Amino acid sequence: MLKLYLAGPEVFLPNARAVLDAKAAMTRAYGFEPICPGDLVIEPAPTRHQFGLNISATDEGFMNAADGVIANLTPFRGIAADPGTAFELGYMCATGKLVAAYTNIAENHYARTVAWYDGKVELAEDGRKRGPDGLSLEDFDMIENLMLHGGVERRGGPVVIHKASQDALYSDLTGFEACLRILAEKHGKMGGPLP
Amino acid sequence: MLKLYLAGPEVFLPNARAVLDAKAAMTRAYGFEPICPGDLVIEPAPTRHQFGLNISATDEGFMNAADGVIANLTPFRGIAADPGTAFELGYMCATGKLVAAYTNIAENHYARTVAWYDGKVELAEDGRKRGPDGLSLEDFDMIENLMLHGGVERRGGPVVIHKASQDALYSDLTGFEACLRILAEKHGKMGGPLP
Repeated sequence: MLKLYLAGPEVFLPNARAVLDAKAAMTRAYGFEPICPGDLVIEPAPTRHQFGLNISATDEGFMNAADGVIANLTPFRGIAADPGTAFELGYMCATGKLVAAYTNIAENHYARTVAWYDGKVELAEDGRKRGPDGLSLEDFDMIENLMLHGGVERRGGPVVIHKASQDALYSDLTGFEACLRILAEKHGKMGGPLP
Repeated sequence: MLKLYLAGPEVFLPNARAVLDAKAAMTRAYGFEPICPGDLVIEPAPTRHQFGLNISATDEGFMNAADGVIANLTPFRGIAADPGTAFELGYMCATGKLVAAYTNIAENHYARTVAWYDGKVELAEDGRKRGPDGLSLEDFDMIENLMLHGGVERRGGPVVIHKASQDALYSDLTGFEACLRILAEKHGKMGGPLP
């Protein structure tokens, strides 16, 4: 049975365990074995810093044990995906494993960046769209920076967009389930959830 | 000669070429061959989306050709590293290549997240520090999410912190040069810049 690492900022939720349990159950229902970053049994450490390193080691071990990843790229504390999830998606892309991603907001990367600049984006002399700070904007009809969206799409993985309600921004599993369904059709032993 | 991929948000600067050229020259002075994401000769494409995919393919090819990475994790449009750079650092960590990182601000990940919440962070019943939105904060004395900082440190790579002036936030190369110096001492043929 293929193992899927479930990457995303859900680990920071007050009800992280419940959301991760729901994701894990759904993953099993589609015929995959879930590996959650929340399933942590971390070695105690003398410092916070060392404890952080231990979590890093554990999560990398989980990724190494997995056959693929579903990454929740919903923007987190700003306009971009959680940097830990971005790191993990890059890690899994490098290994040639199965990759899938979803986001729970409808605005694409460009729209979010324009909003970051309150719409004050202009075409510069070099032909690039730039904010008042001079930094250029990516405008590639993608949900995230092109390395993330492109890394998944170029490997044939699904990039699912679903507009969740604000109060379910990190717990809505519609996009997550769509990823599972597509992966199951292509790689799983079953075409859908258990009856 | 070892090749280093120079990851970071400099590609978005108005003077991207000049900053990347300066990084490339400095990289050569320390005995490494630079590979810049700005060195793009991208295949034309019928759509913006396909053009973005082509850049993704080119940059991944650059990473595959490199022996290591120096990642600029200076926060970009918010409190976190550029997600493209985070992806690239994860990608390089997965391959067992040389990794190094620097940031041009002094505040660590935790301090930046507390500032994001205007200081309104409290210890929750579960023993975690949480913002008013209930999301927990990482507090591991690290410059970024633990997967990034931990991924570099656990591989023995340098994580350099340098406080740059605001107007040189992405162009100050002090931390970048410190990474080069450390990599050169450990892995290069030379111990410092050319005389």
